[in-house]
Amino acid sequence: MSDVRVAGVGLTSFGNTPERTSRDLFGDATIEAFADSGVPRDDVEALLYGNFMGELSEHQGHQGPLMAEAAGIRAPATRYESACASSGVAIRDAVKRIRNGEEDVLLVGGAERMTNLGTAGATEALAIAADDLWEVRAGTTFPGAYALMAQAYFSEFGGEHEDLAHIAVKNHENALTNEKAQYQRAIDVDDVLEAPQVSSPLGLYDSCPISDGAAALVLTSEDYAAEHDLDAPVAITGTGQGGDRMALHDREHLARSPAAREAGEEAYAEAGIDASDVDVAEVHDCFTIAEVLAIEALDLEPIGEGISAARDGRTTADGETPINLSGGLKAKGHPVGATGASQIAEVSKLLAGTHPNSDHVADATTGVAHNAGGTVASATVHVLEVVA
Amino acid sequence: MSDVRVAGVGLTSFGNTPERTSRDLFGDATIEAFADSGVPRDDVEALLYGNFMGELSEHQGHQGPLMAEAAGIRAPATRYESACASSGVAIRDAVKRIRNGEEDVLLVGGAERMTNLGTAGATEALAIAADDLWEVRAGTTFPGAYALMAQAYFSEFGGEHEDLAHIAVKNHENALTNEKAQYQRAIDVDDVLEAPQVSSPLGLYDSCPISDGAAALVLTSEDYAAEHDLDAPVAITGTGQGGDRMALHDREHLARSPAAREAGEEAYAEAGIDASDVDVAEVHDCFTIAEVLAIEALDLEPIGEGISAARDGRTTADGETPINLSGGLKAKGHPVGATGASQIAEVSKLLAGTHPNSDHVADATTGVAHNAGGTVASATVHVLEVVA
Repeated sequence: MSDVRVAGVGLTSFGNTPERTSRDLFGDATIEAFADSGVPRDDVEALLYGNFMGELSEHQGHQGPLMAEAAGIRAPATRYESACASSGVAIRDAVKRIRNGEEDVLLVGGAERMTNLGTAGATEALAIAADDLWEVRAGTTFPGAYALMAQAYFSEFGGEHEDLAHIAVKNHENALTNEKAQYQRAIDVDDVLEAPQVSSPLGLYDSCPISDGAAALVLTSEDYAAEHDLDAPVAITGTGQGGDRMALHDREHLARSPAAREAGEEAYAEAGIDASDVDVAEVHDCFTIAEVLAIEALDLEPIGEGISAARDGRTTADGETPINLSGGLKAKGHPVGATGASQIAEVSKLLAGTHPNSDHVADATTGVAHNAGGTVASATVHVLEVVA
Repeated sequence: MSDVRVAGVGLTSFGNTPERTSRDLFGDATIEAFADSGVPRDDVEALLYGNFMGELSEHQGHQGPLMAEAAGIRAPATRYESACASSGVAIRDAVKRIRNGEEDVLLVGGAERMTNLGTAGATEALAIAADDLWEVRAGTTFPGAYALMAQAYFSEFGGEHEDLAHIAVKNHENALTNEKAQYQRAIDVDDVLEAPQVSSPLGLYDSCPISDGAAALVLTSEDYAAEHDLDAPVAITGTGQGGDRMALHDREHLARSPAAREAGEEAYAEAGIDASDVDVAEVHDCFTIAEVLAIEALDLEPIGEGISAARDGRTTADGETPINLSGGLKAKGHPVGATGASQIAEVSKLLAGTHPNSDHVADATTGVAHNAGGTVASATVHVLEVVA
């Protein structure tokens, strides 16, 4: 099997650009990714693209061929949808295809246009990631679902809103150097605790924003990277995917994410690492509690102890295992279909030493990206390593 | 590389069941597929699922995990969307994964709930497969787009509505034995010519219906089939995918389908066959003209001559290369996300000798399934062969 190299990455600014279409956003991300990679567009053999709510936000399905056009390539294109893990599953298939020699060069990524729907409209659209018959019609939206998960966590393991606040503070701090982040603004624990409540215990600053944006990756085989003398020191060495029941009431625990655990175990096994080897990670912090569940599922913290990781400095920029040095979904933004690919872009730059926050992880050789769909009914985990 | 065996297939009846959800439909299809295969649900390693308009027809995205639940499996699940080729692209990835040893047993399929939207609502929803900015907002719907393609064909190569009518007549005739077809009713050329016009030259009987339905396939590696002594004589020996510009006005020809041609060439090359080896085919006849373009793109007819194939009996049940022995989209129905998988099911049964129309192709060893998205901005082709 061939290694899969991250040859180039491109990100738009994440934020409020309601007038820009997905094709505008994705086109921009690919311009940056091609320039970063040095790979000519003609060498791309297929596009694997993640998008979640294009049908609702811009009356546009069938975005695969449209995005190939926006990227300036002539190649077959497929759209993947797994809610907020849409580009995570696209990346996973790309990794499988390249390492098995099916293709040598793939364009992978995702985009989402959301802010044109307004906050209420976007929240309503996001709800299609939950079970429409048994959750959404009963009034469940994602802030409510994650609030239930937080309450279940507190009830089982202890913890309080102030613990979660440290996660938001940390991620905003990390985003200060990220010029493409939606928020480049420091906040403190009091800001989080005093912010309007969204769904108890979660408040406004426990929640990621509604965002527009796109991310693109040029992935190549090891052979292609060598033949073309690419500057591509980072490889994706493991991919994992997990699944769970869709509706929260069908789960054994509200405060565990077995889909993410399965994905992590599979990815670690493929890469031949264990959790103690992970130097840095981007995880899916759509809400502050989600970061806690993610780092526990990835075995970066024991079950029930993730709650104190940010508060006690274990996951801060200079902690043992910095989490979300990009700012995470919380501060960087969460254009749903782009998020999984953007995490790979961030980890790749952190490991390559080209990220503004690379100084915090100067000796890092192994990173992880964790992308989750819905209330983690689907999840992907990828391991990235410095190999050249 | 391992051969990919079609171990079991399951189809719901296609038709009008507006009260049934996608999960109801897909669950039923998988019950039949598992029974047909003899493969236990616990052996399934992942679900690859095609769906097109669930966001619009039932406010439900993230259908992967939901459908794993409906199928009674516990495994990671991914939803693929490429308009009317949604399950075609899912099958393609499944084939790549099994033949490379990534997995041994995959559940693949698709479902669509459409009739609950009504005809106007479904037509509006289908339009998201075209370019919203440049086609849909100018008033283009799919009957109009395919009418343009038919007019361009007539203008370049000759032909008239009566030629197309023979395609509808043939496909209705083929469906008479298909108890799951939406229409089991013979029609004649006059019925087609006298039917209400939809978009000149296409009339009501040139158009496939709006349908609800689901299709499921259990695919396994050759090794798994041998170890478990499965009755699985048919293999998918080639897969191809092509892409084209999304909007008709960006194409070089309105009356050609280069995406389908590329997909066909790739699939034939993988299988080591050429068009003259094809004994039977299911092609994507969403409109009668689409069958003409498909058989030309697959090289089953020379460019400009496909128009006379049904009229002159070359593609009828006892012709040289029978096309759409299932009844095709025209008579069998077209529940969008299910169509690509249903074609594989039909070809597999035709080759295995278990299809009501197998008698017409008693010596057939090689079949093809052609699935197209939008105005063929995306297309997949699969080659199936009797291997055991």
